[in-house]
Amino acid sequence: MSVHAVIPFKPVNPKTRLSSVLGRDEREEFAWAMLADVVEAIQASGAVPTILSTHPLAWSQVEIEVVAAGLNDALNACFAHHPEPLLLVMADLPLSSPDALRRVMDTTADIGIVPGRGGGTNVLFLKDPARFRADFYGVSYLKHRQIAAEFGCTVEVIDSFRLHTDIDEREDLVEVLLHNSGKSREFLVSRGFTLVTEHGRVGVKRHPHEQAL
Amino acid sequence: MSVHAVIPFKPVNPKTRLSSVLGRDEREEFAWAMLADVVEAIQASGAVPTILSTHPLAWSQVEIEVVAAGLNDALNACFAHHPEPLLLVMADLPLSSPDALRRVMDTTADIGIVPGRGGGTNVLFLKDPARFRADFYGVSYLKHRQIAAEFGCTVEVIDSFRLHTDIDEREDLVEVLLHNSGKSREFLVSRGFTLVTEHGRVGVKRHPHEQAL
Repeated sequence: MSVHAVIPFKPVNPKTRLSSVLGRDEREEFAWAMLADVVEAIQASGAVPTILSTHPLAWSQVEIEVVAAGLNDALNACFAHHPEPLLLVMADLPLSSPDALRRVMDTTADIGIVPGRGGGTNVLFLKDPARFRADFYGVSYLKHRQIAAEFGCTVEVIDSFRLHTDIDEREDLVEVLLHNSGKSREFLVSRGFTLVTEHGRVGVKRHPHEQAL
Repeated sequence: MSVHAVIPFKPVNPKTRLSSVLGRDEREEFAWAMLADVVEAIQASGAVPTILSTHPLAWSQVEIEVVAAGLNDALNACFAHHPEPLLLVMADLPLSSPDALRRVMDTTADIGIVPGRGGGTNVLFLKDPARFRADFYGVSYLKHRQIAAEFGCTVEVIDSFRLHTDIDEREDLVEVLLHNSGKSREFLVSRGFTLVTEHGRVGVKRHPHEQAL
């Protein structure tokens, strides 16, 4: 039986930390592109995605559930009524690959977790979702390990930079240009983003003609 | 037969991008701590480390080679005279684990590579070092893939956040506090570093009493 995967998604005014290089409409388009890449990786891994969206979405190929509650409440309601293993994947992981997701789902522990950069939680695989509680924001990686311990669950940390790299800031766009080959990179290239090296560090630059903030 | 691993190391005034939070002596001590963690992971993976150092080092347990040349020249001289598979590991990867290093050495391709954050190259595994040329600095990840292609070598990108996370800047110290359990974390804790959450982001703070810049 296929594993169900949930992807929390905020389509309206997302990724505000990218406001210095992308206008609001562009951030919404980029968030969509990243979501599409995540959905494709999930489907290729053999799991079946459902998007938990804060707003209605026009996307017929994927199941959408509109949730009014905050992220943690929405997830905990979902966990309580899901007696099967569940994969949770953040929507801002455009480097996601089927191989990395399968490594998460292949864990022999009760829970597989991939920490995000800066102590967040990017991916969770819960063999028994009722024995867990989501507590996102802040150092959620440590909170989630603590919660797993409280439930007596074993945890494996899956070592993947593809799933560790959440895209929040301008410098993260370097990783998309380098390691994504899907819609996210295509979007950035279409908006004039290129890699630049300055003072020995690699960053992104946007071609001025493409700027429309 | 054991694989040889080389670790380039600069013991004098290293990690200048950490100058805002660590004095020069402290940066030298921290670079040592990170090197010690890398050496331990390499030894636990079954490989035999040699440190290519810019200056003489007093460390009897590990082979040290003092190299006068720049990084690329030193490595290319090394590659030319090494007819066996060779592992190259940067010294600022304190999250290195034996498992991740073994995944690199288990590649079926001619070359295994782990990109660093921002387009660098953190780890290389060369089955035939004579068929490669080091070209570090800038977007070395892309340069190294291009060089591999010029030599007709197949390449596997190994997906590991532990080997992807090179420690250069203040915000990187978060990853050391979260995911290292060796000398690097011990050093930071002894100097008063702790995790803090401000405006939803996780960073490090140094206890003022421990500050000695």
